[in-house]
Amino acid sequence: MPSPLSRRLLAEFLGSALLAAVVIGSGIAAQRLSADAGLQLLENAAATAAGLFALILIFGPVSGAHFNPVVSLVDAAFGGLRRRDLVPYIAAQVTGCVAGAVLANAMFALAAVSISTHHRASPAHLLSEVVATCGLLLVIFSLVRTGRPATVPAAVGAYIGAAYWFTSSTSFANPAITAGRVFSDTFAGIAPASVPTFVLAQLAGGLAAFGLIRTLYPT
Amino acid sequence: MPSPLSRRLLAEFLGSALLAAVVIGSGIAAQRLSADAGLQLLENAAATAAGLFALILIFGPVSGAHFNPVVSLVDAAFGGLRRRDLVPYIAAQVTGCVAGAVLANAMFALAAVSISTHHRASPAHLLSEVVATCGLLLVIFSLVRTGRPATVPAAVGAYIGAAYWFTSSTSFANPAITAGRVFSDTFAGIAPASVPTFVLAQLAGGLAAFGLIRTLYPT
Amino acid sequence: MPSPLSRRLLAEFLGSALLAAVVIGSGIAAQRLSADAGLQLLENAAATAAGLFALILIFGPVSGAHFNPVVSLVDAAFGGLRRRDLVPYIAAQVTGCVAGAVLANAMFALAAVSISTHHRASPAHLLSEVVATCGLLLVIFSLVRTGRPATVPAAVGAYIGAAYWFTSSTSFANPAITAGRVFSDTFAGIAPASVPTFVLAQLAGGLAAFGLIRTLYPT
Amino acid sequence: MPSPLSRRLLAEFLGSALLAAVVIGSGIAAQRLSADAGLQLLENAAATAAGLFALILIFGPVSGAHFNPVVSLVDAAFGGLRRRDLVPYIAAQVTGCVAGAVLANAMFALAAVSISTHHRASPAHLLSEVVATCGLLLVIFSLVRTGRPATVPAAVGAYIGAAYWFTSSTSFANPAITAGRVFSDTFAGIAPASVPTFVLAQLAGGLAAFGLIRTLYPT
Repeated sequence: MPSPLSRRLLAEFLGSALLAAVVIGSGIAAQRLSADAGLQLLENAAATAAGLFALILIFGPVSGAHFNPVVSLVDAAFGGLRRRDLVPYIAAQVTGCVAGAVLANAMFALAAVSISTHHRASPAHLLSEVVATCGLLLVIFSLVRTGRPATVPAAVGAYIGAAYWFTSSTSFANPAITAGRVFSDTFAGIAPASVPTFVLAQLAGGLAAFGLIRTLYPT
Repeated sequence: MPSPLSRRLLAEFLGSALLAAVVIGSGIAAQRLSADAGLQLLENAAATAAGLFALILIFGPVSGAHFNPVVSLVDAAFGGLRRRDLVPYIAAQVTGCVAGAVLANAMFALAAVSISTHHRASPAHLLSEVVATCGLLLVIFSLVRTGRPATVPAAVGAYIGAAYWFTSSTSFANPAITAGRVFSDTFAGIAPASVPTFVLAQLAGGLAAFGLIRTLYPT
Repeated sequence: MPSPLSRRLLAEFLGSALLAAVVIGSGIAAQRLSADAGLQLLENAAATAAGLFALILIFGPVSGAHFNPVVSLVDAAFGGLRRRDLVPYIAAQVTGCVAGAVLANAMFALAAVSISTHHRASPAHLLSEVVATCGLLLVIFSLVRTGRPATVPAAVGAYIGAAYWFTSSTSFANPAITAGRVFSDTFAGIAPASVPTFVLAQLAGGLAAFGLIRTLYPT
Repeated sequence: MPSPLSRRLLAEFLGSALLAAVVIGSGIAAQRLSADAGLQLLENAAATAAGLFALILIFGPVSGAHFNPVVSLVDAAFGGLRRRDLVPYIAAQVTGCVAGAVLANAMFALAAVSISTHHRASPAHLLSEVVATCGLLLVIFSLVRTGRPATVPAAVGAYIGAAYWFTSSTSFANPAITAGRVFSDTFAGIAPASVPTFVLAQLAGGLAAFGLIRTLYPT
C-alpha cells in the first residue's frame, strides 16, 4: 500500500529541492574554488552522483524518488504511478527544484534568485539530452522490471555521474531540474530560452526509452 | 542485547578519533600537496567519504557508530539509545574527536595542538549547517526505519562527500567534529569563536530532521 | 531460459554502443575542459567506471552484457554462450562500438567519423593489454563461478577504472572497443595500424585467463 | 573445506603481484601525466582503492585474499589460517609483490628493476604506519567476526583509499607491499633503508589491532 498522496508529494518536493541544491550548490562551490573547467565539472559530477545515491535512498520508500517528470510519465505509462497522481507529482518536482535553486543561492550568500544567462540549446546538446534521458530511464526501469529495485540508487548516481561527461550538455536529463537551474546564474544554470528545446529532447529520450524497455524487458 | 556500555563507549571514542583523524589529516595532506583550493576540497571530501564508510562498518555493530551528538540525541528521542547513555556517548564523541585532532597533527609532524584561526560563522554558513545536518539525519533514520540499516555506511559516506560541496560551510554537521577541528590550525580547522553558532545550527538541523522523519516514516 | 537471440543481440549492440559513447565521449569532454593530461585520464576513467557499472546492470539480464569478444569467447569455451551465437555476438559488439563512436562524435558536434592518428602499439603497451585483459576476465569469471554474479557490474567498473591507470596502454582490454575507437580522432582514439597487435595481445590475455580460471576455480 | 595449499599460494602470489602492479603502475602513470603532487596521489589512491576491491573479490574465495603478512599473522592468531601455512603464505606475498613491481616497471617500459631512493622513515611516518595498519586490520576482522565477510572487498578498498590521505606515510600498511615497492624507483617506491622500521611499525599496528579486536568483538 503506497503512502498517502500528501506524504508522497512532500517527499517528491523535498527530494527535488535537495537534488537541485546539490547540483547547483556544488556547481557554485566548484566554480569558486577551482580554476580548471574540467576539474569544476569533476567536482560537480562527483557531488551529484553521491548526492543522488543518498537522496534516492532517503525518499524511495515514500514516493519512489522520481524527482523527474519524465520518470513519472514513463512510470505512469507502465502502470506504476496512478495517472491522477501525475500532475501533482510533476508540480511537486518543478516547485521543489525551483526551491532548491533558491536554497543553493542562499547557502552561498548569493541573491535568492538570479536568472541564468547560459545559453545551451544547440543540435549537439539536444542530441545529448535525448541520449542521456533515454539511458537514465533504461537504468531505472531495467532494474525495476528485473527484480533489482534496491540497486536503483547506486545505479542512477553512477549513471548521471558518467553522463555529465559523455554528453556535451552535461546531461540535465530532467525537465524539473532544467526548470530549477534557470533560477541561478551560476555554473549549473541554463538560460530560459534554452529550456523548451531541452525539455522536448528529454521527452523524446523518454519516448525512445519506453519503446526499448518494452522490447528488452517485456514482462 | 547491546554490548556493555564500556565497550560501546570505547567504540564511540575510537571511531570519533579516527573520523577526526581522517577529516583533519586528509585536509593537511591536501593542503600540502595541491595548489588548487577546489582540488584540496575534492581530496578532503573523497578521503572523508571513504573513511566514514569504513569507520561506520567497523564500529556500527558495537555502538551504532554515531560519532555525532546530534545523531545520539535524535536516536534517544526515537527510543533507540537509552537516555542515561546519552551523556557518556557525547563525552566519548567529543573527547574522541579532540584526540583524533591531536593524532592527525602528530601523524603530520605538527605541534600536538594548535588552535584554529579559521573563522567560519556567517549566515550562509549557518544555513548550510542546518541543511547539512538535517540531511544527514534523514539519510540515517530513513534507512533505519525502513529496514535497510546495512546501507547506512555507504549512504552516510556518499552524503557527506556530496555535502562538502553543496554547502558553503563544507558540512561539519556534527558538534563533536566541530569541537575537534578547533585543535588543528590547518585546512579543516575552525576558530573557537565560530563553534557555538555552528553547534546551534546543527541542533536546529537535528530538530527539523526529527519532525520530517516522523512525518515521512511514521512507523 | 535465455531471451530470444534477436533481443540479446539488440542488448549487445546497444550496450556496446553506449559503452563506446561513454569511453570516447568522456575523453572528448576531458580533453576540451582540462589542461593536465592526468586529470583528463582521471575524468575519462571515472566516467568509464561509473558508466560500465550502469550498462552492465542494464543489459546483464538480457544478454549477459559482454560488450567484448574476448568475454564471449571465454564464456563459450566454458559452455556459457552457445557456440553458434558467438559470431552474431561479436558482430553486434563491433558494429555497436563503431556506432557508439559515431554517436559520441555527434554529441560533441564533431564530424560523424574521423580516423584516429594515435599510434599506440609498443611492446610495453602490448604487455599492458595482455595483463589488462587477463585481469578483466579473472574478475568476471571468478565472480560467476563462485556464485556472485550480482557483483560483476561494480567489480568490472572498478577494475577498468583502476586498469586505466596501472597499465601504460590505459587498458582497452576489448577488441570491439578497440575497433570503435578507430573512428574518433580524439583523446580515446587508436590508429588503425595499432589495432591488429592490440587485438592479438587481448586474445593472449584471454587465453592466459582461461587457464588461470580453470586452475583457480575448477568447479 | 579450503582449497589445496598450492592453489591458495598461487592465489596469494597472483593477487599480491597484481596489487603491487596496481600500486606502483598507477603511481608511474600519475607521475608521468600530472604536475600537481596532490593530483598524483589522488590518481594513485583512486586506482589502488578500486583495484583492491576487484582483487579481493577475485582471490578471496580461494585464499582469503590476504596479500599482507600482518593480515595472515593476525588471522593465524585468531585460528583462521593454519600456523603451518603462515610461512608459505608470507613467502608467496613477498615474492608476489616483488614480481608485481617488475611487471609494473615492464608495463611502463622501464628497467625491470630499479632500487628506490625515496627515504621515508621519520617518526611521523612510522606513527602513520602504526595507525594505518591497525585500522586496516580493524576493518577486516570487524567484518569477518560480525558475519559480513562479503563487505570486506569494498571496505578495504575504501579504507586504503582514505588512508593514503589521512596519514603522512600514504599508508603502506603491508610488509609485502613495502618490500615490493623497493624495486621501482618511481612515485610509490621506498628506499631499502626505510623498510625495517616501516615493517616494525606495521607489526606494532597489527599487535594493537589484535588487542582491540578481541576487546570489541569478543565472540
